[in-house]
Amino acid sequence: MDEVVKIPVKALKEFVSAVLIKHDISRENSVIVAEVLVTADQRGVSSHGVQRLIQYYTSRIKNGVIIPNSRMEIIKETPCTLHVSGGDGLGQVTSVKTMRRVIEKAKENHLCVASVFHSNHYGIAGYYSMMALEHDLIGISLTNSSALVVPTFGRNALLGTNPISVAAPARTEWPFVLDMATATAPLGKIELYKREKKPIPLYWGTDNEGIPSSDPEIVIDSAISRKGGLLPIGGADEESAGHKGYGLGFLVDILTGVLAGGAFSINVWKDKTKPANVCHFFAAIDPKAFIGLDEFKDRMDEYIRMLKDSSKARGKERIYVHGEKEYELFSAQKEKVTIMKQVVDEFRDMGRELGIDVPF
Amino acid sequence: MDEVVKIPVKALKEFVSAVLIKHDISRENSVIVAEVLVTADQRGVSSHGVQRLIQYYTSRIKNGVIIPNSRMEIIKETPCTLHVSGGDGLGQVTSVKTMRRVIEKAKENHLCVASVFHSNHYGIAGYYSMMALEHDLIGISLTNSSALVVPTFGRNALLGTNPISVAAPARTEWPFVLDMATATAPLGKIELYKREKKPIPLYWGTDNEGIPSSDPEIVIDSAISRKGGLLPIGGADEESAGHKGYGLGFLVDILTGVLAGGAFSINVWKDKTKPANVCHFFAAIDPKAFIGLDEFKDRMDEYIRMLKDSSKARGKERIYVHGEKEYELFSAQKEKVTIMKQVVDEFRDMGRELGIDVPF
Repeated sequence: MDEVVKIPVKALKEFVSAVLIKHDISRENSVIVAEVLVTADQRGVSSHGVQRLIQYYTSRIKNGVIIPNSRMEIIKETPCTLHVSGGDGLGQVTSVKTMRRVIEKAKENHLCVASVFHSNHYGIAGYYSMMALEHDLIGISLTNSSALVVPTFGRNALLGTNPISVAAPARTEWPFVLDMATATAPLGKIELYKREKKPIPLYWGTDNEGIPSSDPEIVIDSAISRKGGLLPIGGADEESAGHKGYGLGFLVDILTGVLAGGAFSINVWKDKTKPANVCHFFAAIDPKAFIGLDEFKDRMDEYIRMLKDSSKARGKERIYVHGEKEYELFSAQKEKVTIMKQVVDEFRDMGRELGIDVPF
Repeated sequence: MDEVVKIPVKALKEFVSAVLIKHDISRENSVIVAEVLVTADQRGVSSHGVQRLIQYYTSRIKNGVIIPNSRMEIIKETPCTLHVSGGDGLGQVTSVKTMRRVIEKAKENHLCVASVFHSNHYGIAGYYSMMALEHDLIGISLTNSSALVVPTFGRNALLGTNPISVAAPARTEWPFVLDMATATAPLGKIELYKREKKPIPLYWGTDNEGIPSSDPEIVIDSAISRKGGLLPIGGADEESAGHKGYGLGFLVDILTGVLAGGAFSINVWKDKTKPANVCHFFAAIDPKAFIGLDEFKDRMDEYIRMLKDSSKARGKERIYVHGEKEYELFSAQKEKVTIMKQVVDEFRDMGRELGIDVPF
């Protein structure tokens, strides 16, 4: 296990924001990114949290992949649709601002879909779908990403891990928050197995000929070189429904890269010195246009309780609903959040380098 | 292998239509159902084709589960949304008529979502998503269904096989048509293994304690009694991403049963003597509101070719795109379609009984 420390949430957000301001990001935008990153840590998704600040964001600003003062632009707008260019700015900023507008429009017209291109890595997909919850809307958030996943019967990684997130409000239960990559397992998990020298299950990834492999090092090399790669949900075969995971990953890229007119497949961040042209899809649906809000929330509660209260498989103690584990972690980490000590040490170095006070 | 015969498509559709007319279905509506059922056979999905005519439709009309002269009704309508009651009529009729309206509205306003309750089994989900293709729209079709699938770590079947279908137009390539149940394998496939006395993979279903079983008979009994059941895509464990398949199945029921205000989970067709209250979700998205139609179709072609032309895994000869196999089967079965002899014999008996000429 990595050594971890507990950091006050407020101080961590201020630090992340201050670092971004030093990289020519406006205060307003830096606050958005800090909020998205720290929320990921609070929800227990540290792989998409502040540990990515330097590798994914500040270094990409320095390298010209992310344009700090870009302006996002609405290319086309109708009462229920938005086509947005992110201007190669920070993915979180473009996504939060787009989703805010999607929510406004869905409150007016009961439905809105936005398609975004010229964006960048946006962190956890669930942040944006969850924005809809406080407005009593169902939220949807999809993104494409650098290719790491092989299609069924393929030898080369051609699809990103392209996540799907949908959030739906409940009344007294936690909302439903699905936030799932369309690969069986994330690369970060395979890296953990590599460090621990443990074999991985055969449905996580392939060797460089597209054959499932239990060697984490081989699978990581395959994914990064795109000769082989991660396997979609369902693994390598049709018998285990791998073609369904492949279909979902392709679907996400159709609704993001293809529909928005940005990069798709291996063209996402093709030239590492240039903007990545990542694409997103956001939507909000108003239950008021259908069964009505009160009844929708009551029915969500009823369904969630049915699932949770139902009999458990032999040897299992609990049935989870999607988002529940993360809400529990968030509740426990409202004031202080667990961060890897290694990341905190990196932040202290960065603070010294940039002349930013590190209050933790 | 079952004995099969080749039947002229036109004659088969006329027969199905005539049978339905004898069950008090109007000519117009009977033609819709015949079209949906025979299309499933032509696309190679015989499990959802004419073999279900008696068991799923005419017997349910006789039993009062499906109301022959019901009128569907638009409960609520806004420029981009529709809330529809199917009046407990035939699922295909309600779905085709709703999807036609969804398409009209999406052509006017670039986007439309419909939520339908008080419907019945609608056949292949892909029929409705594909209706959008000839109008150059992206089509979406979801439905809930009788509970057969266990949630992750659960012992009881609480979710239907709840399929997801999305269709997106291409220019010269076949369109993308994803049409996938959210269980790993369908019950019908497990029945085939039972007849052939073959063990099934451990990620298809569980015994009556929720533990994966390789015995097809045990799994079928579990699913039907709902003590145990089929496994979602990804199987029984989180390690194999079973919670993702579970999440997708639950999501489909949220967007259908919960949102429409009809039955969800085990309440779908709870009392076998009464209407099933099946729910659907339909949507259409207009690429013109985003990158534009021509560019969308060109990009689809490019992507599909990239996938198909990419290197194959060792030992594999072809990479498929979703819908491709079915389009090839459909093309080969435009005039004559393969039907199980047993089904044709059943039709001959039914023809005699109802006084309908059986021209095959």
